[in-house]
Amino acid sequence: MKNNALPVLHPVAGFRLGATRAGIRKPGRPDLVVMALAEGSTSAAVFTRNEFCAAPVIIAREHLGKTAPSCLIVNTGNANAGTGASGLADARACCIAAAGLAKVAAEAVLPFSTGVIGEPLPVDRLIAGLPDAFAHLAEDGWAAAATAILTTDTVPKGASRRIELDGHAVTVTGIAKGAGMIRPDMATMLAFIATDAGVDASALQRCLQGAVERSFNRITVDGDTSTNDACVLVATGRSSAPRIAGNDANIASLGDAVTAVCIELAQAIVRDGEGATRFVTVSVERGADSRECLQVAYTIAHSPLVKTALFAGDPNWGRILAAVGRAGIGDLDIAGVDIYLDEVCIVRGGGRAADYTEADGERVLARSEFEIRVVLGRGESRELVWTCDLSYDYVRINAEYRT
Amino acid sequence: MKNNALPVLHPVAGFRLGATRAGIRKPGRPDLVVMALAEGSTSAAVFTRNEFCAAPVIIAREHLGKTAPSCLIVNTGNANAGTGASGLADARACCIAAAGLAKVAAEAVLPFSTGVIGEPLPVDRLIAGLPDAFAHLAEDGWAAAATAILTTDTVPKGASRRIELDGHAVTVTGIAKGAGMIRPDMATMLAFIATDAGVDASALQRCLQGAVERSFNRITVDGDTSTNDACVLVATGRSSAPRIAGNDANIASLGDAVTAVCIELAQAIVRDGEGATRFVTVSVERGADSRECLQVAYTIAHSPLVKTALFAGDPNWGRILAAVGRAGIGDLDIAGVDIYLDEVCIVRGGGRAADYTEADGERVLARSEFEIRVVLGRGESRELVWTCDLSYDYVRINAEYRT
Repeated sequence: MKNNALPVLHPVAGFRLGATRAGIRKPGRPDLVVMALAEGSTSAAVFTRNEFCAAPVIIAREHLGKTAPSCLIVNTGNANAGTGASGLADARACCIAAAGLAKVAAEAVLPFSTGVIGEPLPVDRLIAGLPDAFAHLAEDGWAAAATAILTTDTVPKGASRRIELDGHAVTVTGIAKGAGMIRPDMATMLAFIATDAGVDASALQRCLQGAVERSFNRITVDGDTSTNDACVLVATGRSSAPRIAGNDANIASLGDAVTAVCIELAQAIVRDGEGATRFVTVSVERGADSRECLQVAYTIAHSPLVKTALFAGDPNWGRILAAVGRAGIGDLDIAGVDIYLDEVCIVRGGGRAADYTEADGERVLARSEFEIRVVLGRGESRELVWTCDLSYDYVRINAEYRT
Repeated sequence: MKNNALPVLHPVAGFRLGATRAGIRKPGRPDLVVMALAEGSTSAAVFTRNEFCAAPVIIAREHLGKTAPSCLIVNTGNANAGTGASGLADARACCIAAAGLAKVAAEAVLPFSTGVIGEPLPVDRLIAGLPDAFAHLAEDGWAAAATAILTTDTVPKGASRRIELDGHAVTVTGIAKGAGMIRPDMATMLAFIATDAGVDASALQRCLQGAVERSFNRITVDGDTSTNDACVLVATGRSSAPRIAGNDANIASLGDAVTAVCIELAQAIVRDGEGATRFVTVSVERGADSRECLQVAYTIAHSPLVKTALFAGDPNWGRILAAVGRAGIGDLDIAGVDIYLDEVCIVRGGGRAADYTEADGERVLARSEFEIRVVLGRGESRELVWTCDLSYDYVRINAEYRT
């Protein structure tokens, strides 16, 4: 279900990454990453919508409003969240230290943190690790960085695409981390994507928002929206392709590549979901509008009863239908609902399909990846969401996280 | 945490219960209950708001609209849900059979079912069991009935109160079942409450709705609203107290007793929550209105990350604060939020309380019952919700339910 090996991650001209072991939480593991952006790069970002957002998110937003970023610093092991005024001061101190090494203004540095909530950030160790991270900066540093940003993830996550714009090669490469507290809302865990295309900042922001909406905003592991979610897209402009402004036709092509990278990263997060044994696409079709399709899809994807049945390989269609019924569509006619597990129709007209057998349902649920398809019969809208099952290991991982 | 022994359940004059073993799902266990209402009784009921509601819920609603109930039949082992037209016919057939034995109209019988969804109701076995259930009808049949309506419950649930109205003794006694798929919305699993007070039907309905709103509508185990939830309150009028009509002062006293019974039953359901090891009161205070207090309380109570931390005895206040932050209060100032675990302040002003120690938090979470109290600092509203933790056993119970 999950891929242990990273795919080929093509370097992006003008975007360098360096990782090191700073001993943030545990000694000996890579846990600090620096990313350096070539001069003239533009950046776009989306952040968590959790009202309780971490200090680095607050500082990154503030800095983005002041100047174009030149440098990103990312630590794992500690989220610097729920740390109040001292957390903000800590995040600023890290930016100032990185700015000194990068010879840029402190506002040109964006900080990102992930890990345990509510512990003070070990600023001294982080700052002490920065010089080594800078010393390792390289355009082929993607794989090392993909590993150094992980927390409860079991595999590194990366994706890469090469396209042509007006005959010029353009690369889009990204990495992401995340396995629990996954229910992004207009943002994701941590994801860093770069392209060597040149793109105006406002067009780049629209490009990123469009991609996130179709990828990171369509996944859920446990319904918990993180305090630190952030997704950054950098365009270095170092390719020979013409620069893309607002209404350029090339923005669509670039957007497709960015979306493809984001979808691959988002799916990798679900495949690596805490304790996940199944990768499940929940597709809701023929809804009256997109909103109600998503409502039904997320109600199914978040139902502990559905998720434990999927873990058991139990085609308990009653639990799926019960989730559809409580999704909050006031005028839903259950008698018009059909449900499929891959090719097997399990519910027709709101009841068990006449030709359905348990053996057919169990055959589908024995697969490590399958689709739950709900046909509402109310309109022409369709949405899909990716999720996973709920296993003993989800409980174990989250019960033991801090011990 | 849970009480294995039922409290004393005072008989209610004019309300008889009889249980038997009908072999609905498994042979040898009590699984069928009949309740007979004395002539002149009034009844009130609330049902699930799940759009996918079971056949017996549809039939019970239909019958309630036609005449005053004389007889309730309840089976466990099979929910008769998702069974389409044949499920409706099955529920009707059971009512007709019971009506013949009770010598009443079929519309005076209300059917209730609980158990596995999507399997055909074994009507023949149910009907064959009815004569024995009728033969056992007795005013002291409460305890036997409390056991015969259970599914994954591990303990029977009952509550009883005696009050005086104008110097006349009045009894309120009830039983309930439920342990999973628990997130009632204007109704509950199955609960049957009776009083020997005489109450006009419309006053009785308001009395029940008020009680349910403060009891069954304030609990959650796993956020899944059942297809079969129903709560019935019967007033037999056999006490010597004066009959209660619309604006009678005695309705408040009776309402308090009914609410007390409902709260005790609702809490018993949470205490017996599938896999539960902790009984947790989530109290949200100083909110702008009741709605936002409930939003915050349910977001905490449903968060898998909070629930697994509670199971681990881990005072992970960051997860609680993150749940507060994503509860959907748009203008929430996290810096105004305080959080307590019983007497221990863990969050003050949106960050870890200065004097808080992990040892203090762990001391509270070692208790089998405690309160999470969130102070929003926005107004004067307060709401509370009862819930439990998420353990390995929740996953086991729900993964193995049908095997």
